[in-house]
Amino acid sequence: MTNVTANNHCNEWDLLITDANIATMDSNIDAPYGAIEHAALAIKDGHIAWLGKQTELPSFDALATPIISAKGQWLTPGLIDCHTHLVFAGSRAEEFEQRLQGVSYEQIAAQGGGIASTVTATRAADHETLFVLAKDRLNALYSEGVTTVEIKSGYGLDCENEVKILEVARLLGENHPVDVKTTFLGAHALPPEYQGRSDEYIELVCNDMLTQVVAGNLADAVDVFCENVGFSHAQTRRVFAAATKHGLPVKCHAEQLSNQHGAELVAEFKGLSADHIEHLDEQGVKAMAAAGTVAVLLPGAFYFLRETKQPPIALLKQYKVPMAISTDFNPGTSPLCSLQLMMNMGCTLFRLTPEETLAGVTKNAAKALGLSDRGVLKVGMRADIAHWQISHPAQLSYQLGVNKLLNLWVLGRLN
Amino acid sequence: MTNVTANNHCNEWDLLITDANIATMDSNIDAPYGAIEHAALAIKDGHIAWLGKQTELPSFDALATPIISAKGQWLTPGLIDCHTHLVFAGSRAEEFEQRLQGVSYEQIAAQGGGIASTVTATRAADHETLFVLAKDRLNALYSEGVTTVEIKSGYGLDCENEVKILEVARLLGENHPVDVKTTFLGAHALPPEYQGRSDEYIELVCNDMLTQVVAGNLADAVDVFCENVGFSHAQTRRVFAAATKHGLPVKCHAEQLSNQHGAELVAEFKGLSADHIEHLDEQGVKAMAAAGTVAVLLPGAFYFLRETKQPPIALLKQYKVPMAISTDFNPGTSPLCSLQLMMNMGCTLFRLTPEETLAGVTKNAAKALGLSDRGVLKVGMRADIAHWQISHPAQLSYQLGVNKLLNLWVLGRLN
Ligand SMILES: [Zn+2]
Ligand SMILES: [Zn+2]
Repeated sequence: MTNVTANNHCNEWDLLITDANIATMDSNIDAPYGAIEHAALAIKDGHIAWLGKQTELPSFDALATPIISAKGQWLTPGLIDCHTHLVFAGSRAEEFEQRLQGVSYEQIAAQGGGIASTVTATRAADHETLFVLAKDRLNALYSEGVTTVEIKSGYGLDCENEVKILEVARLLGENHPVDVKTTFLGAHALPPEYQGRSDEYIELVCNDMLTQVVAGNLADAVDVFCENVGFSHAQTRRVFAAATKHGLPVKCHAEQLSNQHGAELVAEFKGLSADHIEHLDEQGVKAMAAAGTVAVLLPGAFYFLRETKQPPIALLKQYKVPMAISTDFNPGTSPLCSLQLMMNMGCTLFRLTPEETLAGVTKNAAKALGLSDRGVLKVGMRADIAHWQISHPAQLSYQLGVNKLLNLWVLGRLN
Repeated sequence: MTNVTANNHCNEWDLLITDANIATMDSNIDAPYGAIEHAALAIKDGHIAWLGKQTELPSFDALATPIISAKGQWLTPGLIDCHTHLVFAGSRAEEFEQRLQGVSYEQIAAQGGGIASTVTATRAADHETLFVLAKDRLNALYSEGVTTVEIKSGYGLDCENEVKILEVARLLGENHPVDVKTTFLGAHALPPEYQGRSDEYIELVCNDMLTQVVAGNLADAVDVFCENVGFSHAQTRRVFAAATKHGLPVKCHAEQLSNQHGAELVAEFKGLSADHIEHLDEQGVKAMAAAGTVAVLLPGAFYFLRETKQPPIALLKQYKVPMAISTDFNPGTSPLCSLQLMMNMGCTLFRLTPEETLAGVTKNAAKALGLSDRGVLKVGMRADIAHWQISHPAQLSYQLGVNKLLNLWVLGRLN
């Protein structure tokens, strides 16, 4: 594909968007947000065929090319939510209420509450039930400009149910305009039937479960909850080794509540991302920088759990570790299914700039998923494009509630 | 209107909703949320004609009465957002960005930023421009179940523009299903042209401005920003005295950044509400309790400004001061146009229970507006009713992003 036009040779495009301001997020363009104002963008075969200043538009077949005016408004890459637990059944609202009424976490756990209640409800739900519940959540993200969503398993915690969750996630990807990437998180929590036998459970995860997941091509990556209330550093290493053997990239719920050096472990395996990382130290930051591992910040969980320990933003910037932002949407610690709210929280709670939060839900979120075909608007990339009624891209992080999305293209298609 | 049915005498209703769970919020019903499960509700002439256990449904004209099944889902009173600054022009997103890039508040103010920029943009906007901007915001609230919204002036700060804002607010009320109540907040900030002459400005507010507002029947209440960066206790008293002379109830932005004893002053005037109140002390709480003044909590501004001083929730409960929750939607300190997010923040940041937050956006919000015809579902009240796809009313405060609203009646009408 080329943007050089020979004489007598017109470009043939599927769509041309004119009169746009484009926040390309392309770091090769020397302007905040990689912005090109008074720009145009051409789509061919679901990908970006040309973009640039409208005054530099090459010749094209004006009779055969549909043209849409962006009316001076802004285009950004379609947003990417790179860390969700979108497929689950049951509600934890009553538990939320009990906590606020003063019931202790221990009492709730003793009643079968906490993550166990989500596991029970998810195991009991069939594919269709899970699909319908998850579709509403995916629609909510889609309605605010999200075009790629990662979905983790982790509420099944046995072969049959982990597979079921990943099958539902794949089904969502096949039946919804949003592109879905899946992550196998069998090592999310210890299921009740393995109480006191966590090494045996990890054995199951690394062997039977992972084998079935791989056989069904159900996962694009493997994740572990590495924490003193989750799985140990040594157990995490076993899962990562097994994933690597199958050629699957790894990522980690790391350093959320304490420093287990999970991020260093991800880096050792050249993994995609370390997520949460409130308790990450400089050594971990350096390891991530060296490995090209992305820092996924999850301000929703930070807010919902009323954490006070901030992720080491200054160190991450110092060592140039790319920072993504995600919802961590899940029923226990982040029942907030809004990536735009996370952008606001990234600024308000973590003091990121609006440009950093937009990078966090576009190019850095793509990197956290190992995807090099999206997250930036430039020639050759997927035409996943959000069109916003805003006067400045900072508005996307600043305001909430009034939906500013005008149009959303996924692979060049409006839905 | 009676719910006693004589023999041979059928009730004639405009609508009957069956198979509902009703969170009436009626404190006379001895259950959390004043809940009646397996219930029905009848509407006649825009008001509630009957509600109760479905097994106790009186006889009605089954041929002439339209029936809607709530399908086992929940009804609540339509939500009430009792404190907004919804009518304004301009965006403060770029200023938000500058702050996060390290530009000081003083530098931004020196460039004409801060509230001055909103005043400049709002003065420059005509009625239609303001109407269109505000309508989108009102729609956002409406889409999440809000049926009554209070709108304040306060970005005009001269006769012509304060009147313009209130006229736009009235126009919104006439052209939108949401019922709009207006508040004159001429004493919101000192306009640039009165720098150093705040007493003269208060003179203008109390005389020319208020006279025009009253003559046009443009306000249902009067508000003052009583703060060391706003207007003094003595100036607030002058405005309250003038409002009272015109028969208008008063309310106050009080004790947000310091204790100016604004809440006591509202109480002295038997005012409707003291709003923000992070720095309220026990004396103020007692005064509010004695006067029946509502405490309006604004967690969005608390969040956005990263405040750490909590409002005195325990004291408010101890003295039984009703607590409302509102968005305080405004471009400077709460650009978050979502009452459901405020419900979550009320729980998460202020540790209210979901029942308290729901009371805060229904019956107590009605009280904060002096409205006795809504905020509770019982016979004789307005049929402002939200129908939610939830299994428990706590879900309304717990989750965000997936809109659970199925139907919304305002004065008995679906729109
Ligand atoms: Zn997670
Ligand atoms: Zn306010």
